[in-house]
Amino acid sequence: MFNQIDYRGKIIKVIHKAEEIQKRSEQIRCQGKSIVLVPTMGFFHEGHLSLMRKGRELGDDLVISIFVNPAQFGPHEDFESYPRDLERDLQLAREIGVDAVFTPDNMELYPEGFQTYIELEKLPNHLCGLSRPVFFKGIATVVAKLFNIVKPHVAIFGEKDYQQLTVIRRMVQDLNFNINIIGGPTVREPDGLAMSSRNNYLTLKQRPTALTLYKALVKAKDLLKNGVKDAGEIIQVATKLITAHPETGIDYISICDPECLDTIKTIDKPALMALAVNVGKTRLIDNMILYP
Amino acid sequence: MFNQIDYRGKIIKVIHKAEEIQKRSEQIRCQGKSIVLVPTMGFFHEGHLSLMRKGRELGDDLVISIFVNPAQFGPHEDFESYPRDLERDLQLAREIGVDAVFTPDNMELYPEGFQTYIELEKLPNHLCGLSRPVFFKGIATVVAKLFNIVKPHVAIFGEKDYQQLTVIRRMVQDLNFNINIIGGPTVREPDGLAMSSRNNYLTLKQRPTALTLYKALVKAKDLLKNGVKDAGEIIQVATKLITAHPETGIDYISICDPECLDTIKTIDKPALMALAVNVGKTRLIDNMILYP
Repeated sequence: MFNQIDYRGKIIKVIHKAEEIQKRSEQIRCQGKSIVLVPTMGFFHEGHLSLMRKGRELGDDLVISIFVNPAQFGPHEDFESYPRDLERDLQLAREIGVDAVFTPDNMELYPEGFQTYIELEKLPNHLCGLSRPVFFKGIATVVAKLFNIVKPHVAIFGEKDYQQLTVIRRMVQDLNFNINIIGGPTVREPDGLAMSSRNNYLTLKQRPTALTLYKALVKAKDLLKNGVKDAGEIIQVATKLITAHPETGIDYISICDPECLDTIKTIDKPALMALAVNVGKTRLIDNMILYP
Repeated sequence: MFNQIDYRGKIIKVIHKAEEIQKRSEQIRCQGKSIVLVPTMGFFHEGHLSLMRKGRELGDDLVISIFVNPAQFGPHEDFESYPRDLERDLQLAREIGVDAVFTPDNMELYPEGFQTYIELEKLPNHLCGLSRPVFFKGIATVVAKLFNIVKPHVAIFGEKDYQQLTVIRRMVQDLNFNINIIGGPTVREPDGLAMSSRNNYLTLKQRPTALTLYKALVKAKDLLKNGVKDAGEIIQVATKLITAHPETGIDYISICDPECLDTIKTIDKPALMALAVNVGKTRLIDNMILYP
């Protein structure tokens, strides 16, 4: 495997060892330069690339990590089959002008005897956390590790994974990470489907069905615009809309407080509408802030 | 409250805000200087001072923290009555040449909505962790916070709290903290009693009884020297020795692996002997490495 690629005179460094990138980051920080980190699980789509472009603007040194984190997958989830294409990812990253890519193997991040995990007591007891019990524990732990390894000033996460962003913001505050967390807006296909690496699992037949998540959110926005403030009513309409399509299994549709994620009954301040729906065997999520 | 004290031309800074010390540490690191942290709960005795003296030698900038951490005390433990004397502590610290003291209040470290904790899956299921279920969760969490706040290159902890040192070493490795963890040897009274802030709880009558922890360790060492390698036999002798004294209640006496803390049956390699004994209402701990 190459460990640096030259692109238009710009070198992208590919680093596998935590210690190596730690040293590099120390040096960069001491030069008074700012480091931006975009953590990813790879298999880039336009959503990832938009976060990197934002990162390119926000700091001097742009680092991305590519690591499919086993700790955030449950035993029956898609860790093994999660799509991977490192060569293509590196190509895309260097086109954007990423300075360094951290791609550790599992043993580098979870060596024998590993036993330390970060858990939040409240935020994971909502939305995705209810059906994915180890998910946010795995996320918080690996992100803290990446923060300690890359030592960024700024880290960027997609708003599509809204609950993840909320968990990370809270962890950063609670554990006194001195890092500015930035959210990047969800990037959508032309018809509105939120971009996701898991969209690759969808069959051609399932593809229109996948769009119902977005349609349900838009419908909710319309209803609110027309004066419907009752969350229960909006969720009912969304449920009907989604279950009218074949192969759909709703995990949750929730209207909640955008910070603490507690359920909201009446939308009289900005609320998060979030949903998770299985389309065939593929679990998709989407969300939108509803402004009354 | 003063926020800096001049001593022999040396200034000691007293800092209450995490953000302030973070900024200070960033500046010091960028000057190429090394930072040493000695985290404490205050009420200094010679044990603390020995760690600070070691810290003074090991780095350019010596920071100590003084914070009685509520998260590591159980509901029926001595958080409220834990001895405190900040003025005296500052006096002692500046005599040693400490550069900065971080003394946050509880709301600074645990603001409203705080919910993020660090837990280890195995090490706390031994020794003190069994009777103090939240202890190591509280320790790991506050130490990670202090690491992110003070950003030290080196941190020093006493070997008297052996399990704590083990937990912190493991956390540092697992979460990729780029910090060198140093243990400082237990400091003892002339008769052998391990120094502890909790010794202040002892009555004059309990004081000789408190010494049995040390006596049990020395006895174990002698037995081993005389060929007794059976851990069960040694523990039996130690138990007898301690319970012969009034007001003693043994929490545990353990002979175990110094790294993973798993129980050892036969001492054929270096082993940790650790014990916790209540003397009246005061819980005392001590330990020693036994070399066969």
